[in-house]
Amino acid sequence: MEKDQYYMKLALQEAKKGRFQTWKNPMVGAVIVKNDQVLATGHHIHYGKNHAERDAISKLTPEQLFNSTLYVTLEPCNHYGKQPPCSDLIVQSKIKRVVIAQVDPHKLVTGKGIAKLKAHGIEVTTGVLAKEAEELNRFYSYFYQNNRSWITVKQAVSLDYRVNDQVNTRTAITNHSVYERVHQERADYQAILVGSNTAIIDNPSLLTTVQTDYPPIRIIIDRRGRLLQHKDLKLLTDGQAQTWIFTQNSELKKNLTNNQVKVWLMKTDQLTEVIQTLAREGIQSVYVEGGPTLANAFMNDQLVNKVIEYLSPQFLGKAGTAGILPSSRMALKNLKIEQLSNNLRIVGEIDV
Amino acid sequence: MEKDQYYMKLALQEAKKGRFQTWKNPMVGAVIVKNDQVLATGHHIHYGKNHAERDAISKLTPEQLFNSTLYVTLEPCNHYGKQPPCSDLIVQSKIKRVVIAQVDPHKLVTGKGIAKLKAHGIEVTTGVLAKEAEELNRFYSYFYQNNRSWITVKQAVSLDYRVNDQVNTRTAITNHSVYERVHQERADYQAILVGSNTAIIDNPSLLTTVQTDYPPIRIIIDRRGRLLQHKDLKLLTDGQAQTWIFTQNSELKKNLTNNQVKVWLMKTDQLTEVIQTLAREGIQSVYVEGGPTLANAFMNDQLVNKVIEYLSPQFLGKAGTAGILPSSRMALKNLKIEQLSNNLRIVGEIDV
Repeated sequence: MEKDQYYMKLALQEAKKGRFQTWKNPMVGAVIVKNDQVLATGHHIHYGKNHAERDAISKLTPEQLFNSTLYVTLEPCNHYGKQPPCSDLIVQSKIKRVVIAQVDPHKLVTGKGIAKLKAHGIEVTTGVLAKEAEELNRFYSYFYQNNRSWITVKQAVSLDYRVNDQVNTRTAITNHSVYERVHQERADYQAILVGSNTAIIDNPSLLTTVQTDYPPIRIIIDRRGRLLQHKDLKLLTDGQAQTWIFTQNSELKKNLTNNQVKVWLMKTDQLTEVIQTLAREGIQSVYVEGGPTLANAFMNDQLVNKVIEYLSPQFLGKAGTAGILPSSRMALKNLKIEQLSNNLRIVGEIDV
Repeated sequence: MEKDQYYMKLALQEAKKGRFQTWKNPMVGAVIVKNDQVLATGHHIHYGKNHAERDAISKLTPEQLFNSTLYVTLEPCNHYGKQPPCSDLIVQSKIKRVVIAQVDPHKLVTGKGIAKLKAHGIEVTTGVLAKEAEELNRFYSYFYQNNRSWITVKQAVSLDYRVNDQVNTRTAITNHSVYERVHQERADYQAILVGSNTAIIDNPSLLTTVQTDYPPIRIIIDRRGRLLQHKDLKLLTDGQAQTWIFTQNSELKKNLTNNQVKVWLMKTDQLTEVIQTLAREGIQSVYVEGGPTLANAFMNDQLVNKVIEYLSPQFLGKAGTAGILPSSRMALKNLKIEQLSNNLRIVGEIDV
């Protein structure tokens, strides 16, 4: 129905208002309609605060709510988390019909909210703009469907596919537009991951310029424990966000652990162990920022969902380090190409 | 003056009508104006045919021409070539004023046409849209200013900068839009150049889809004479255009020379010798199509004016051959980036 789509589009717009603040929760939007009039809108504003349905419902009187239709981008929850279940509230509100975009992929929730509503005689329609809703919470959906983090690998390369002009050095390659874009897109992920080599050579902060109460956790893979010799790195000392280190060197745990830094001891040298730990910790999305050796390991372990390449059209010369070189052919889908002044942003996804 | 620019823009548009048919001559356009009215337009239609000035003047009566203003994109010639000098014709036509965009870079002509006009009391204005006019005949201008061909290197690469997925094989990388674009842009050059490896492995035709009486000459660099073992290649047998071979192997001259194929014996193994021969032969522009080894030689000899890269966002894997890798950093200017459906065209120029 065209009307349903119209109101659901409104709800999707509402949902986006929560961007960067819902953290482990998905962005959700809600719209309440009666007699072809929008009576209230709502969204999940902040982790731990009202869900979208409650936010919208709280703006109306019982008379207004009676016999109304609720449009919500994600299936209402039916369990006690930080908030009481939305399904109960909807039933109490005497809403007549509930239109849902995406059925919740979260195992604790899926289908249960809908069942409760139906059991109380509420008319339920699902799947309206489902694809758009799933896209909105892509990482959340992926995480609960696949039991592991969505992994995006990012690299910045020259026209001749070098990440620097000399091995083991840092070369500023891309322009200011790319710099700003990267600092923004970090905020879409729950963790930013680098290898110890990048941490030591670049000494990056890996922060985001986006205002958020949940800056991404900075993760360093340091199997051998090289960071012991580099205790003054920003990632270990700046107090700006959490840093996690994955290592096989137990000295690191003794020496580097503090309020900001958490050290995870690995039993193996396998990336899959890191991935399993991140999944257990509920990290839904990881932005892998470097360098090529680490990125190649992720690629060749078939762990990468998406590649973002920033390309600066200049030659750095053959002495530099090549970008990602997977061991075999790999197609990219859902390609997106964008020009950022004189640089390019090329994005593609990999079926894994 | 705004009016001058307006009419010169018209003349530039006229000039472009001669594209692909003026061959060694530049494209030239002319507009004749009197009392703010365009009385005639003309252009150099075809190599050996009327110059633009003569084309426009031939359309008018002596009365119309008297006291008129001629706009012409390039300085009128003052020497006998395939045509009598245009400067004489202009003087005879009693044109009052001549507005010129670009002063001819050709040593035989430069300034002489203007001098003749002035000597006969004709008012001459130069430099109106000069940059646009020079851009129009970029290769012609470069050739006569630098006494050597303009060299463009083209490559088609994957996201991981491979030209194939296995060394010494041919891999179709780019999409149909790129294929069509390359077949068109070949016609802008007077020669297409490849190495013997590309000629043998790809067996290409190196033709253009553009209708032209002057298809680019196909040039193969084959120092050792490997083509002796591949006499059936399209480039040696198809009769579609001329093929030149540069070699140090005198057997080639004896065995491969025919109506279509001309063999140049090199005294050295240096590219500069090839470049000098091409300059002597009046080849104003060369489009170098492969492969990376040859392109690197051009790059490292500082011979490349422009790089055109077609990029297909897919990974071919580390077993493939890398694209151009110059020995040191090299900036690109006048960058142009264009999307051709899911592929990219990235163009940059190098100061040489």
